[in-house]
Amino acid sequence: MLIKSFERGRCLLVRLDHGADIIGQITDLAMGEEIETGFFSVIGALSRAELGYYDQVSQKYGTIQIFDPMELVHCSGNISLLNNQPFVHAHAVLSDRKGMVRGGHLNAGKVFAAELYMQELLGQHGQHLKRVPDQVTGLNLWSEE
Amino acid sequence: MLIKSFERGRCLLVRLDHGADIIGQITDLAMGEEIETGFFSVIGALSRAELGYYDQVSQKYGTIQIFDPMELVHCSGNISLLNNQPFVHAHAVLSDRKGMVRGGHLNAGKVFAAELYMQELLGQHGQHLKRVPDQVTGLNLWSEE
Amino acid sequence: MLIKSFERGRCLLVRLDHGADIIGQITDLAMGEEIETGFFSVIGALSRAELGYYDQVSQKYGTIQIFDPMELVHCSGNISLLNNQPFVHAHAVLSDRKGMVRGGHLNAGKVFAAELYMQELLGQHGQHLKRVPDQVTGLNLWSEE
Repeated sequence: MLIKSFERGRCLLVRLDHGADIIGQITDLAMGEEIETGFFSVIGALSRAELGYYDQVSQKYGTIQIFDPMELVHCSGNISLLNNQPFVHAHAVLSDRKGMVRGGHLNAGKVFAAELYMQELLGQHGQHLKRVPDQVTGLNLWSEE
Repeated sequence: MLIKSFERGRCLLVRLDHGADIIGQITDLAMGEEIETGFFSVIGALSRAELGYYDQVSQKYGTIQIFDPMELVHCSGNISLLNNQPFVHAHAVLSDRKGMVRGGHLNAGKVFAAELYMQELLGQHGQHLKRVPDQVTGLNLWSEE
Repeated sequence: MLIKSFERGRCLLVRLDHGADIIGQITDLAMGEEIETGFFSVIGALSRAELGYYDQVSQKYGTIQIFDPMELVHCSGNISLLNNQPFVHAHAVLSDRKGMVRGGHLNAGKVFAAELYMQELLGQHGQHLKRVPDQVTGLNLWSEE
C-alpha cells in the first residue's frame, strides 16, 4: 500500500451556500484557501443530486439522478492534486422522508444547507499528493511520486 | 460561503453509556468537557432510534421511528453554540439484520454500544461559532457574527 | 461514560492495495506503523464484501454476504488494543449501480480501490486504550484500565 504522512494544517468549519453545487463549492474552498491536500466530512440537505457508480468491469461511471429533496446524511472525501489542481473526491449517503437511503460517488448536488468540516493536510518537505491514471482500475489514483 | 478557522483542541475517544440517549450523551459530553465547537464521528449499535427528515418546502421536520435494534453504521456531526449552549447536530445511518439501511437527521437513539471520536475545535481570539435562525431555509445555521 | 483524551499523532493518507482485504490492510497498516490507537475514514470501491449485524438479544453476529461490486460509500472506524494487538473496528456503507445501499459492521471486503485517512492518537503518559469483554452487551468494549 502507498502510505503518505502529513502535517496538520488548518481546521475549518464551513457553511456552504444555499443553491450552489456542493462539489463546486468544495472545489472553490480548496482553490480559494489554497488547500492542496485534505480530509472533509459534511452533513446537511440537498435539493437535488447526481450520484455515480463505477462499473468495475467496463471501467465506466454510470449516473443516478435524484430529483427529490434529500437529507445529506453524510458526505466524506478528500482533496489531492489532479493535473496540478485541487481535486475533490466525494462520496455521499442521501435519505428521503421515509428514511430510505441512496448513496454512491457524489458527482453533483444542489445545496439546501450544508455544514463542512475540513482538515487541511500539509505535505512534509513540500511534498504533494498527486492522482495519476491507474492501469488496473482505470481510475485516477494516488501515486508514489 | 462562511469559512471559520479553528485551532485544534483535545482529541477524545468516548464509550457512550449503554441504555442512554445518544444525543443526550453527546450533549452531556460537550457540557461536561466544556466543548463549544467540535467535529465527531460514532460507530456502534442502537436498540431504538428516531430519525428526522426536513421538508424543504413546508420547512418542518417529519420523524421516522425505528423500534428495532440496529447497527449504528455511522453517525457524524458537529457541536456549535445555540442560545449560548453547546448544540449537537448529528446525522446517522442505521442497518438491520439483512444489511438494509435507513438514515437521516438523528433526533434520538438508545445506545446499545457506541464508540465516539471527538475533535474539539478552539475559536481563534476567543471566537465562537453560533447558530442563528436563517430566513431562507428556516433552519438555525452558522452565522458570521 | 468513559472519556479518554489523546495527543494527536501522525495524519496518514493511504491508498490500499487492489485485490487485498480491507480489514487485513488496515490491520497491516496499524501493525506496520505501530498505531495502537486511531480514527479512520475510507472511501473507494469493493469487489465483494461481508457485513455483520450484531443480534442484541442472542448476542451473536450474523453475516451478510455481498458478491457484487459495490461503491464503498463510506467506511469509518477506530483502532484500539485487543489482547495487546491493534484491533480494527470498522463499519461500512455500500451502494450498487442503482444507488441502493447496504451497510453494517464490516467483516471483510476485497479492495477494488480505497483511499484512507488515518488520524493516529497517542495516549497521554503512555496510556493505552484496551478492549475487554463487557458482560452487559457481550462485546469487547473500551475499558477504564
